[in-house]
Amino acid sequence: MLDARALITDLRAGRAPDAGALHAFAAGLADGRVSDAQAGAFAMAVCLNGLGPGGAVALAAGMRDSGDVLTWDLPGRVVDKHSTGGIGDPVSLILAPALAALGCYVPMISGRGLGHSGGTLDKLESIPGVSTQVDEARLRAIVSDVGCVIVSATGRIAPADKRLYAVRDATGTVESLDLITASILSKKLAGGIGALVLDVKVGSGAFMATAQDARALARLLVDTAQGAGCTTAALITDMNQPLASAVGNAVELAEVMAVLHGAIDPPLAQVVLALGGALFRLANVASDRAALAAVLRDGRAAERFGAMVAALGGPRDFVERWHDHLPAAPVIRDLPAPEAGHVAAIDGVAMGMAVVRLGGGRQVETDRIDPGVGLSHILPLGTRVARGDPLLRIHAASAAAADTAAAALAAAITLGDAPSLPPLIHEEIN
Amino acid sequence: MLDARALITDLRAGRAPDAGALHAFAAGLADGRVSDAQAGAFAMAVCLNGLGPGGAVALAAGMRDSGDVLTWDLPGRVVDKHSTGGIGDPVSLILAPALAALGCYVPMISGRGLGHSGGTLDKLESIPGVSTQVDEARLRAIVSDVGCVIVSATGRIAPADKRLYAVRDATGTVESLDLITASILSKKLAGGIGALVLDVKVGSGAFMATAQDARALARLLVDTAQGAGCTTAALITDMNQPLASAVGNAVELAEVMAVLHGAIDPPLAQVVLALGGALFRLANVASDRAALAAVLRDGRAAERFGAMVAALGGPRDFVERWHDHLPAAPVIRDLPAPEAGHVAAIDGVAMGMAVVRLGGGRQVETDRIDPGVGLSHILPLGTRVARGDPLLRIHAASAAAADTAAAALAAAITLGDAPSLPPLIHEEIN
Repeated sequence: MLDARALITDLRAGRAPDAGALHAFAAGLADGRVSDAQAGAFAMAVCLNGLGPGGAVALAAGMRDSGDVLTWDLPGRVVDKHSTGGIGDPVSLILAPALAALGCYVPMISGRGLGHSGGTLDKLESIPGVSTQVDEARLRAIVSDVGCVIVSATGRIAPADKRLYAVRDATGTVESLDLITASILSKKLAGGIGALVLDVKVGSGAFMATAQDARALARLLVDTAQGAGCTTAALITDMNQPLASAVGNAVELAEVMAVLHGAIDPPLAQVVLALGGALFRLANVASDRAALAAVLRDGRAAERFGAMVAALGGPRDFVERWHDHLPAAPVIRDLPAPEAGHVAAIDGVAMGMAVVRLGGGRQVETDRIDPGVGLSHILPLGTRVARGDPLLRIHAASAAAADTAAAALAAAITLGDAPSLPPLIHEEIN
Repeated sequence: MLDARALITDLRAGRAPDAGALHAFAAGLADGRVSDAQAGAFAMAVCLNGLGPGGAVALAAGMRDSGDVLTWDLPGRVVDKHSTGGIGDPVSLILAPALAALGCYVPMISGRGLGHSGGTLDKLESIPGVSTQVDEARLRAIVSDVGCVIVSATGRIAPADKRLYAVRDATGTVESLDLITASILSKKLAGGIGALVLDVKVGSGAFMATAQDARALARLLVDTAQGAGCTTAALITDMNQPLASAVGNAVELAEVMAVLHGAIDPPLAQVVLALGGALFRLANVASDRAALAAVLRDGRAAERFGAMVAALGGPRDFVERWHDHLPAAPVIRDLPAPEAGHVAAIDGVAMGMAVVRLGGGRQVETDRIDPGVGLSHILPLGTRVARGDPLLRIHAASAAAADTAAAALAAAITLGDAPSLPPLIHEEIN
């Protein structure tokens, strides 16, 4: 039975609430019996005192059950992947069709970009005609026919999370690990998946800047998902520089197409292979990293990608003629190195925000995105440059916007001695 | 400028907000620019992390300024008294007219009973015809003519406190000392007073059960009121037993009338004299405890009380014929001692809740009060009784209600060895 005041009082006093109370609270968030004042006090109490052992599981499960939970009857494993967010990270757009090409089913409910971090849905929608807003029947049909789909949550998926997220945003309580975990997992678990691999980003362009913080989040995410009945593992991967050599929407999609056409050496492809391999082990799928590399090389993953794009309203010949379809920015300009040296550090948040200000992301939720703008040809950490060598290429809507971005980006890239390079995959948590 | 999210984020992170931010937040509470979710998160953050040095002053002053602040031009000091609440405590009803009889002006904005603790307004309204809801013009006229008035807050007094109090009630965040202090003082300071004496109760019938907690609250109240520009002191007084020998509304008013007719020896009158004496010292009024005793004995305080009652709609002859005017309960019954011994302990909260269940108080704000019910002739701590001697007298609306009260009250009074008696006045904080 719902007693919001008693639950909040327990949290305030540092008493761990029981699972039933959290489950009822999530239901009350969705149906309005929990007031805004109570939701705000709850979020703050969790931020400061935590949810206690098992609390994240109960809240995630309660928020999952606050709306529709999909169920599947398909001739393969239903799996999913989630990233905690970074820059230049279009992994999902490659991994989902690659998994589908190997007989898995991927109903991926994804998000839009907010702040410095890009959104998978925005990148996919840079393809003309594509809309990621579909109803549940269409979602089910595409998963069944194509093997994968990447869409936004319907209003009926985890409505408690939608309400709590808006409250957290207004009350400065977004950062609690317990609340982040419950929010991520409630939506993923509502997809009715059997296994989940998480990409927890660490570094200058990630929400978690230190290995310790990333490990704590990964541990909580994995334990919570497992506690809620979903086989889950996490890779902690590096975000001290963009994963792809582009940051934006159409510019990242160009890198996706390169990998889908067989370029499996870049870090972007290597993270796809590592995540997919971990997921196969988790889900006991008789496939492996080598099989994934094969479907990237032989065009089967690209074929699944093309089928998904067409099913979402995009051009039928996108895979073959993506160069012609993707929007381009009117102003394209290289950023020259102001001095000789090595690319020693990249401030990922600053780089992401420069793209937001170019029009490629959102400062507030209602901002419209310009799909053609962004950065490409970004030199990786450790690259040696002479004075005047291009550090990256700016794609802008105007010369003035390019100027502003150039100043911000020059400040975001440190040139100096050769840095020690971080590993691409830091560790696996399971 | 109001930035509610930034203020709440600071509180969450343990950064003390500046006074301007808290003042703006209080204004935003009153005019609705602060959302319910933000108010709830704010209350919880203050509960858990505190407001920081000076924070209670800024919040109290901000909430004071969120509505009307009275100003006075009168030929005497404008003063007030506030109690943190207990049982059998009708001090205000005696002190206000006694102060008025000595040339002070007392615009006392008071509260109603909620939970185990009684309310001054309910006690005053047990006099037929009296209404404590008056507009500002009438309040000013009565203070000017009579010298004192005891009324409820108009909607225009401290509206920010009204909003925050409702939020605290719904979110289990009533207990923060910072919020209690700001709430009490915002309303008192809006009365435009020049000096304030506080009666902080400690013991089994008070919100503060230990001397340490009471001292902390008294210290914060005094420092905050002084910080907001009001000369203030606090007495910590005992609430291990009812202050009067009655708990209820009309039954307490009978004790008030006894003191106003010159009975200055009982503890009730002694606390009146101590608080009044402290207030005179604070406010540099050329009067003292002996002068207060004199106006209680010579009828001048009673005369002021009668004038106030008449001004609020009560009978013109109340002081002379109060026995005839006060309502009486239909069932009156003594509670016999189940064994011989001394009155060793009284559970004040249990005794207060027994009166609430008799109909003399409120469990929720909308409950109606039966003014005639309650307890009288309560034996003080340390009294020696034989088996069957009356411990107190129950005034009830029905025999069944009296039975229920008798069982609860027998459990609330411990008979045993002679206890060590607590002092009536524990200490003065200034």
